[in-house]
Amino acid sequence: MALLADQAAQNLEGVRSQKPLIHNITNYVAMNTTANALLSMGASPVMAHAVNEVEEMAAIAGALVLNIGTLSDPWVAAMMAAGRRASLCHTPVVLDPVGAGATRLRTRTAKEIVAGVDVTVIRGNASEILALGHADSHTKGVDAIHTVDDAAATAKRMAGELGTTLAITGATDLVTDGQRVVSIENGHPLMACVTGSGCAATAIVGAFLAVDDDPVSATATALAYFGLAGEVAAEQAQAPGSFMVALLDALYTITPEKLRFRARIK
Amino acid sequence: MALLADQAAQNLEGVRSQKPLIHNITNYVAMNTTANALLSMGASPVMAHAVNEVEEMAAIAGALVLNIGTLSDPWVAAMMAAGRRASLCHTPVVLDPVGAGATRLRTRTAKEIVAGVDVTVIRGNASEILALGHADSHTKGVDAIHTVDDAAATAKRMAGELGTTLAITGATDLVTDGQRVVSIENGHPLMACVTGSGCAATAIVGAFLAVDDDPVSATATALAYFGLAGEVAAEQAQAPGSFMVALLDALYTITPEKLRFRARIK
Amino acid sequence: MALLADQAAQNLEGVRSQKPLIHNITNYVAMNTTANALLSMGASPVMAHAVNEVEEMAAIAGALVLNIGTLSDPWVAAMMAAGRRASLCHTPVVLDPVGAGATRLRTRTAKEIVAGVDVTVIRGNASEILALGHADSHTKGVDAIHTVDDAAATAKRMAGELGTTLAITGATDLVTDGQRVVSIENGHPLMACVTGSGCAATAIVGAFLAVDDDPVSATATALAYFGLAGEVAAEQAQAPGSFMVALLDALYTITPEKLRFRARIK
Repeated sequence: MALLADQAAQNLEGVRSQKPLIHNITNYVAMNTTANALLSMGASPVMAHAVNEVEEMAAIAGALVLNIGTLSDPWVAAMMAAGRRASLCHTPVVLDPVGAGATRLRTRTAKEIVAGVDVTVIRGNASEILALGHADSHTKGVDAIHTVDDAAATAKRMAGELGTTLAITGATDLVTDGQRVVSIENGHPLMACVTGSGCAATAIVGAFLAVDDDPVSATATALAYFGLAGEVAAEQAQAPGSFMVALLDALYTITPEKLRFRARIK
Repeated sequence: MALLADQAAQNLEGVRSQKPLIHNITNYVAMNTTANALLSMGASPVMAHAVNEVEEMAAIAGALVLNIGTLSDPWVAAMMAAGRRASLCHTPVVLDPVGAGATRLRTRTAKEIVAGVDVTVIRGNASEILALGHADSHTKGVDAIHTVDDAAATAKRMAGELGTTLAITGATDLVTDGQRVVSIENGHPLMACVTGSGCAATAIVGAFLAVDDDPVSATATALAYFGLAGEVAAEQAQAPGSFMVALLDALYTITPEKLRFRARIK
Repeated sequence: MALLADQAAQNLEGVRSQKPLIHNITNYVAMNTTANALLSMGASPVMAHAVNEVEEMAAIAGALVLNIGTLSDPWVAAMMAAGRRASLCHTPVVLDPVGAGATRLRTRTAKEIVAGVDVTVIRGNASEILALGHADSHTKGVDAIHTVDDAAATAKRMAGELGTTLAITGATDLVTDGQRVVSIENGHPLMACVTGSGCAATAIVGAFLAVDDDPVSATATALAYFGLAGEVAAEQAQAPGSFMVALLDALYTITPEKLRFRARIK
């Protein structure tokens, strides 16, 4: 899909020239990796979670990233407050429902955010996305027990019902707003061996949403860019430690031209 | 000890084939490293600390890892709740009493966990382990001021009294359940120059406990595996930044055969 | 300034021989990097933030590092308690006012710490430092929108008024106690592409303050050392992921002699 490959290049250029401020309320495990991924790509990350400052921060951000990976009640309150403020400001919001389906707290919180906030995009693995729609879907900790194919039809229906864009990542990524369905084939299996790679993908979607008004194209191009970074990293590293280092390097060195050439979006 | 070297290889194979879910309630500093170490070895890590979800998560985990490295009252409550649930489920529990002996909060919390939870293994440096038994043992922040030799005799007695397995790590590691005493000679001095390496060791003990019912053999083989990863890393890296990267790589690349061959357990 | 280059070498030797305990109450994003930077240089880091243990920890530390990068009310209370205890013990305190100027919570907290604690050094970017003096200075998230030159004259006046040493880091770093003004030219642009590099700089200032009674010389030499580590890292790495690894390596491998030779302090 040449159009989306062009858009991918344009989005990456846009982030590097505009350096959008990305406000993250995310989990402790992935905070450092997320901030480094955003810096490497050219965005300006900030992490802020206090309920008495998140509205101010969300109001000046180009996008808000909500990630429930290490949850507790004060953080849920902060996510809701920041999300509502972002909705008022028409600031795009990305939700990463980490571990939805594994505990009731996570499933309930993800659903509350979807109900109370104008969420632009939800990115998760197949089990997490299914858990937002099914009372009886389960997740093994934070790892998927379903495949992207399992979830594809359900995701299309759910996206229409929820009025949001859904992104399911796996061997092949799928993005749908209920009408359009786009698949992204960039990526590498070693990405699953590094903690926070999904969280970083979600934050990169946030950065692309700050420069691209169409949620489907912003999300698909962001996932192609991140997947390509995984491919480039795997050309240099064959084990998780050095792969993660090479992945951050690749986010920095990939040019818009290279992304246009190597994006595999259908 | 050929038997334990065989068991080490078998445990590593077991983790890689079963991918046990390891529930960590651990410190902010080491969360990322711990998750990456578990992923690199083939386990499935999850971090969850909210008092209103830890029992559910502990109930589906193969092992529970409690680490008091950055403590506060809500986290203590969560550790107690998760630990009690794990005890009920006969799920193995590993405790890392980071900084016990440095402040009263840490010493008291570690003792409360030992008293209220069926702790399978406690892994710490010599000063931390001694602090669990002595009212007057001190720790310099989180660094040991005692050697493993200082603590050996006391540890054997304490393990018997507490009915748990104790692991003291240092230049040579020592594991005892009060009757058996095993020492592990794998390791490298650069491991002490990387934050969270002790915490990662504890989590790896958790992963081996998920596939090996004998706490002494699970712990000794886990420490041999982690120590060997340090040796392999030091063959490639001579300073802490690149050493940490190589250590994660080594956890991924070491085969059961290599572990059987190079484990030094006595 | 040969004198300060000599002092730089002496301070680095001092940290490596004395291994001072550095107590950090810092943000979630930079905790791991900060701990690794302190370990790589030869200091002994500890992270502790519970209000019921920070006074004990601060009392045994060689320096206290307060960093408001991911703030919430319990952490503010802990910083004040630890800071007051450090003041009583004449333990040096370094403040990193991350994001001051971006939200009222951050600006107010930074000012409260400066008012209530005997802060030895404040290190920030130009926007953050200006925000401590001006009601109307703004910061874009945690990134500066002012240059060091913008802030130089104001900083000199503010340092005198506050009775503290101010360090503004940027392309060239500036350190002033209101009378003396020192500039440091070591450093590399890639440092701005790695999260937590400013936070690590602040912690390294803390470690040098533990072995050097003069805040201006401790701070200037610490920034020269950290900047030199950036230069050495850039000789080996051209992108953020590998640069961060090389930076930690450089903190470990730089000798006092090399620092004396390459420090550029004026």
